[in-house]
Amino acid sequence: MIDRLIDGITKTENPTVLGLDTCIEYLPDSSGINSFEEAAGAILGFNKSMIDAAIGLIPAVKLQIAYYEMYGPAGLQAYIETINYARKAGLVVMLDCKRNDIGATAACYSKAYLGKTALPQGEIAAYDGDFLTVTPYLGEDGIFPFVEDCKKYGKGIFILVKTSNPSSGQLQDKTLSSGEKIYELMGDYVADWGKDLIGGYGYSNVGAVVGATYPAQGEQLRRRLPSVFFLIPGYGAQGASGADIAGCFDSNGLGGIVNASRSLLCAYRKEAGLSPAKAMKKEALKMREDIMGAIRRA
Amino acid sequence: MIDRLIDGITKTENPTVLGLDTCIEYLPDSSGINSFEEAAGAILGFNKSMIDAAIGLIPAVKLQIAYYEMYGPAGLQAYIETINYARKAGLVVMLDCKRNDIGATAACYSKAYLGKTALPQGEIAAYDGDFLTVTPYLGEDGIFPFVEDCKKYGKGIFILVKTSNPSSGQLQDKTLSSGEKIYELMGDYVADWGKDLIGGYGYSNVGAVVGATYPAQGEQLRRRLPSVFFLIPGYGAQGASGADIAGCFDSNGLGGIVNASRSLLCAYRKEAGLSPAKAMKKEALKMREDIMGAIRRA
Repeated sequence: MIDRLIDGITKTENPTVLGLDTCIEYLPDSSGINSFEEAAGAILGFNKSMIDAAIGLIPAVKLQIAYYEMYGPAGLQAYIETINYARKAGLVVMLDCKRNDIGATAACYSKAYLGKTALPQGEIAAYDGDFLTVTPYLGEDGIFPFVEDCKKYGKGIFILVKTSNPSSGQLQDKTLSSGEKIYELMGDYVADWGKDLIGGYGYSNVGAVVGATYPAQGEQLRRRLPSVFFLIPGYGAQGASGADIAGCFDSNGLGGIVNASRSLLCAYRKEAGLSPAKAMKKEALKMREDIMGAIRRA
Repeated sequence: MIDRLIDGITKTENPTVLGLDTCIEYLPDSSGINSFEEAAGAILGFNKSMIDAAIGLIPAVKLQIAYYEMYGPAGLQAYIETINYARKAGLVVMLDCKRNDIGATAACYSKAYLGKTALPQGEIAAYDGDFLTVTPYLGEDGIFPFVEDCKKYGKGIFILVKTSNPSSGQLQDKTLSSGEKIYELMGDYVADWGKDLIGGYGYSNVGAVVGATYPAQGEQLRRRLPSVFFLIPGYGAQGASGADIAGCFDSNGLGGIVNASRSLLCAYRKEAGLSPAKAMKKEALKMREDIMGAIRRA
């Protein structure tokens, strides 16, 4: 799956993933929405217009599930329909769920989002993402079920290593008695967990989340973890620019994909007269220029 | 909410929470199930029989959401109906979702599971739990939205500190340059995050997950964190007994609630001739005796 993602990045010349963190507050008009079902329908319609606009320009979408869970099972139905619509459009689909639990429970999450659930008459995929984000607080037996399904179903995961939020250092930047930082330790674990799943570009299907808002750590982790592909949040609305993420890429200009959500979904608010889809495209082109320019200069 | 939980524990003389981690493999007969909708219906029926049997004997239920997510939105509908049924039965409802993300996204999760989601015409609760489990890898700005909703809606959370699984030490037991273990650091954060939400028994609505399978750490954390209530997984199928968790309780016999899932849900498999509900009751009485005896002896 990591090879398919990198193929898409290369083809579009755009290491960007469109974050479909769609809530009704992001829609141009939500005044008529009275139920979770209506909210879910409006969100699905908006997502489809974004996916249509992304084709050929952006290689992947990332769906933050919290934005769907808050509309109940109807929201999850829109989540599934968005996944299916994006896959049919040829986009790689990342499910941003940050799941984590002990082994037996992690196996259930993995069935839900990457694999299939067994029923007496056969198996059914509940959500069927291409990639899933995973949190490592419980150690490897909460990770291995996902890695197994990456092998079995040809999928990928991104494990939190250094996150983009202001307080990420409260745990992740702490120094261990060995002298290492926790995000370095976690990065090394990620490289080890993914060492048997390396694809044709030299990158593993087990990747890491590395925030754009911490450029020095990103650059350091790029050197430390040559086989680990980065999912890079924090661009745009969270404050990072192309210059901040250039260090996350290798000498071939590969090694990461940058997420933007609000700055793309709500671009229409800064572009009087443009539809949300057209404004997203305009903003995405600007973002591509910013990122590709920074990578070339690095 | 922590006071309501402790009231229930005192009234039933039973610091046990029934883990409704129900998958179709745990049902006496799942051979006729052909769809996620049928799986969800069968799971809901089983859960209702367990809740009916728990009334007066067990004060709370904990619903591990992975077991529902793997059956798609139909599974989540069964999740909601189980929550509502348990609440009507007077049980405290813990949602074991281990959610975690950056602030804006954590706020969405919190709306979904503890609070309410805004629509133009008013607010609706999607899942409406009493407690939610939360993972702390992202630091405090991924925690505060949940704490705010604990205040606003009278709810509670349990934050992962020292988990019950075999590899929990891979990160949590690492020693920092300060000499502290990571689970100690996280425990101190939890105490601090919950210091303004302490109820009548001296325990905060911001609690910690502390695994029964690590008795020494449990005892140590009990002394270190006098205001932090513990959700204690790992009893029964995961291997821990009453003696292992006695150190998690204070001198009044309070301070924690012990989860058991498989050992209660599947007790009928060891009890020929008993229904699942009756076998669960018998096993729960044995568990209560084991735990209360160990607490009294400690």
